[in-house]
Amino acid sequence: MGDYDADVVIAGAGLAGLSAARVLDAAGVSVLVVEARDRVGGRTWSAPVGGAVFDLGGQWIGPGQSRMYRLATELGLETFPTFEQGTKVVEVRGRITTYDGAMPKLSPLALVQLQLMLQRLNALARRVPRDAPWQAARAERHDATTLETWRRLLVSHPAARGVMDAAIRTIFGADAGELSLLHVLHYVNAAGGMGALTETKGGFQQDRIRGGAQQFASCIAAALGPERVQLARPVRLILHDRDGVTLIAGGSRLRARRAIVAVPLPLADRIEYSPALPTLRSQLTQRAGMGATVKCLALYDRPFWRARGFSGEAVCGDGPIAVTYDNTTPDGQAALLAFVVGRPARGWSERAPAVRRGEILGSLARWFGAEALRPTAYHETDWAAQPWSGGCPIATFPPGTLTGFGAALRAPVECIHWAGTELATTCSGFMEGAVASGEHAAAEVIERLG
Amino acid sequence: MGDYDADVVIAGAGLAGLSAARVLDAAGVSVLVVEARDRVGGRTWSAPVGGAVFDLGGQWIGPGQSRMYRLATELGLETFPTFEQGTKVVEVRGRITTYDGAMPKLSPLALVQLQLMLQRLNALARRVPRDAPWQAARAERHDATTLETWRRLLVSHPAARGVMDAAIRTIFGADAGELSLLHVLHYVNAAGGMGALTETKGGFQQDRIRGGAQQFASCIAAALGPERVQLARPVRLILHDRDGVTLIAGGSRLRARRAIVAVPLPLADRIEYSPALPTLRSQLTQRAGMGATVKCLALYDRPFWRARGFSGEAVCGDGPIAVTYDNTTPDGQAALLAFVVGRPARGWSERAPAVRRGEILGSLARWFGAEALRPTAYHETDWAAQPWSGGCPIATFPPGTLTGFGAALRAPVECIHWAGTELATTCSGFMEGAVASGEHAAAEVIERLG
Repeated sequence: MGDYDADVVIAGAGLAGLSAARVLDAAGVSVLVVEARDRVGGRTWSAPVGGAVFDLGGQWIGPGQSRMYRLATELGLETFPTFEQGTKVVEVRGRITTYDGAMPKLSPLALVQLQLMLQRLNALARRVPRDAPWQAARAERHDATTLETWRRLLVSHPAARGVMDAAIRTIFGADAGELSLLHVLHYVNAAGGMGALTETKGGFQQDRIRGGAQQFASCIAAALGPERVQLARPVRLILHDRDGVTLIAGGSRLRARRAIVAVPLPLADRIEYSPALPTLRSQLTQRAGMGATVKCLALYDRPFWRARGFSGEAVCGDGPIAVTYDNTTPDGQAALLAFVVGRPARGWSERAPAVRRGEILGSLARWFGAEALRPTAYHETDWAAQPWSGGCPIATFPPGTLTGFGAALRAPVECIHWAGTELATTCSGFMEGAVASGEHAAAEVIERLG
Repeated sequence: MGDYDADVVIAGAGLAGLSAARVLDAAGVSVLVVEARDRVGGRTWSAPVGGAVFDLGGQWIGPGQSRMYRLATELGLETFPTFEQGTKVVEVRGRITTYDGAMPKLSPLALVQLQLMLQRLNALARRVPRDAPWQAARAERHDATTLETWRRLLVSHPAARGVMDAAIRTIFGADAGELSLLHVLHYVNAAGGMGALTETKGGFQQDRIRGGAQQFASCIAAALGPERVQLARPVRLILHDRDGVTLIAGGSRLRARRAIVAVPLPLADRIEYSPALPTLRSQLTQRAGMGATVKCLALYDRPFWRARGFSGEAVCGDGPIAVTYDNTTPDGQAALLAFVVGRPARGWSERAPAVRRGEILGSLARWFGAEALRPTAYHETDWAAQPWSGGCPIATFPPGTLTGFGAALRAPVECIHWAGTELATTCSGFMEGAVASGEHAAAEVIERLG
């Protein structure tokens, strides 16, 4: 290896970075992963809450995410289905209704508008190239339009708007008025359709991981060993030329033939590069902003909502909660999971904790019964307040970004390659996308190392 | 002063930071300005090109910018009018026409559409509060709409679109499809109307500074002295609490009662803060992206275009140049100034220099005569490639940003205050705005120091 500490240094021990490391290691390429936090897993994070382990970050996998099921098998992880039996709740404009099918019980007009919009989104999405959305027909026009502008013509019924707001916020951590329509269409196509994004059984919320989804990362890291996955080493500076890279990370200086930067896009912008990156790349990372997601967990002695016939799923167009799920562990620790996302989640952590808790539990009680007011434990994870993520679930692209800067999204810069779920051409934004993007970056590196 | 190196440390020696320092110094508050570059002035930068001094950055002031005229007088700087006598050129869709009045010679329909759109923009803009655009009537709706979507209904004629594209790109360094309508309306109102933004005589392009506009900054810095304006000290980390701040800047550790961060918004995001900033602030800076502006200077033996009756002004809807100006110095060094801005400027520096030069000079020759092909010097400043600016002229706000995060734009965080032209409530985006925002931050600090 000569003067190199490793063939490849990877910044970021989330699923993207570790998946790249795994592929490179298997190909006989020496790797070193440096991570800013004192843990691996990035936006997956499994930790004890009230005595049981819960996922504070990404937690679901579903059909179409074959890499994750294969990885679970290879790493010996066990999946189990998300609980979804029973009646669901929808609240829009202060009115609570319940339903049992796939679509909420709304007025016929609202339902027709929602269905029409889903169909139109799916139809348009299918025409957006997964690897180059900026080459889609009408890409410029769709990228100069917000999702809000586009949907205004299709969805006028307040109840339909409310349900759609909840869904969009949950998917993107952002509101329809912030999102480029082209970005949304690409995201939908990369997922395989709106159904995958919104549904539990048959969709990307279908299955959970016993013991938590962070195990994907921690198992890969354990196999690589602590010498090759070094924690608490934020990368501050990357010196690069045609012969290799030097990373200044947490006081150490690491030299390698190539680097893979696998951190969220806005955080990649906080690293200093010398020489400076091409302007297209640096202005891209200036624009990508992380969504706002607060994941609230309320633990209970028993899943009281099940006894009352509820599945634990609710959709709310009024805020602060957008959606809820039954999040009971396979060992029987009863829990409800509530997402505060998008606009209602902005600045969440700056509000008084008691007020926040009161609003969340109050909503749960309104939908599932007064027992919701007396949890055995209550826990919030505000991902925007996690400095090494900057937000969740993903970095979104405002209008003009994909057509103006998309070409710089994955393009290597000399010896620097890029990974992260936002860069994936399949299941972008999900664990599956993170793994896919890591594998893609690893393949690029292997090809160039020769 | 006790344990403090100064009462106030200011990060950034652009016009905002230095103006804050000047006010504080005059009020008897001790200040220390630390600057990342080896020069002061930020987005103003006057340097020799072909033997004469030219402004590579901001260069104009105009009526309504009273702070700048007063400052010029106080600092002993001399202004002179931008040359604008003669025929102007407009090129849209490959067709070149000339005109002498205020409006380009286009088809009647194109002219009507342009006039109507200017009127509508001005009328809507006047209703947007300068200090809180997110409180405007219909703020949510206008912030969920791009300027492109809004204008599509008003401006359908290709020639009108072309002229408007050139103007928008020049003003914002970004395209209509990237900009929140609310942001544009606020910007227009802060300037006092579209006329100020687009016109030379009577507008913000009316006057230049003999010897260059960077002198505003360098004269203030000279008065403070090199001990209080320290160059080549990029601020990397700000530790803060209720008792004060500690800045880690270029290896030194500076302690002060309060800090003013006066760097472009996306660069403020590259500084590490401990404790971390409120999520609203950190997600705001993730979203603000600098525009793309390349300022091209072509020097000649003589102002040959004047001899042919041209003013040197051209507007082009076809790119790469959006607008040109006569930029001859008061000492007689003939020069044309061409702006490549917005979409055509993205990734400009990654293209071959000879091709870039050929395109620019070719356009000038098409409009003003073949003599344009033989400059005595040719110089480009690609501001996106300036690491301590990240782009020019300003940071723009994509849809959803002002309504979602605007409250964090100027709000101090404990002992940290913010300045920069984007934060100004008057002439935001201009030197005048930078000075105004610096004065505002200084007043905040003085009030809190008690």
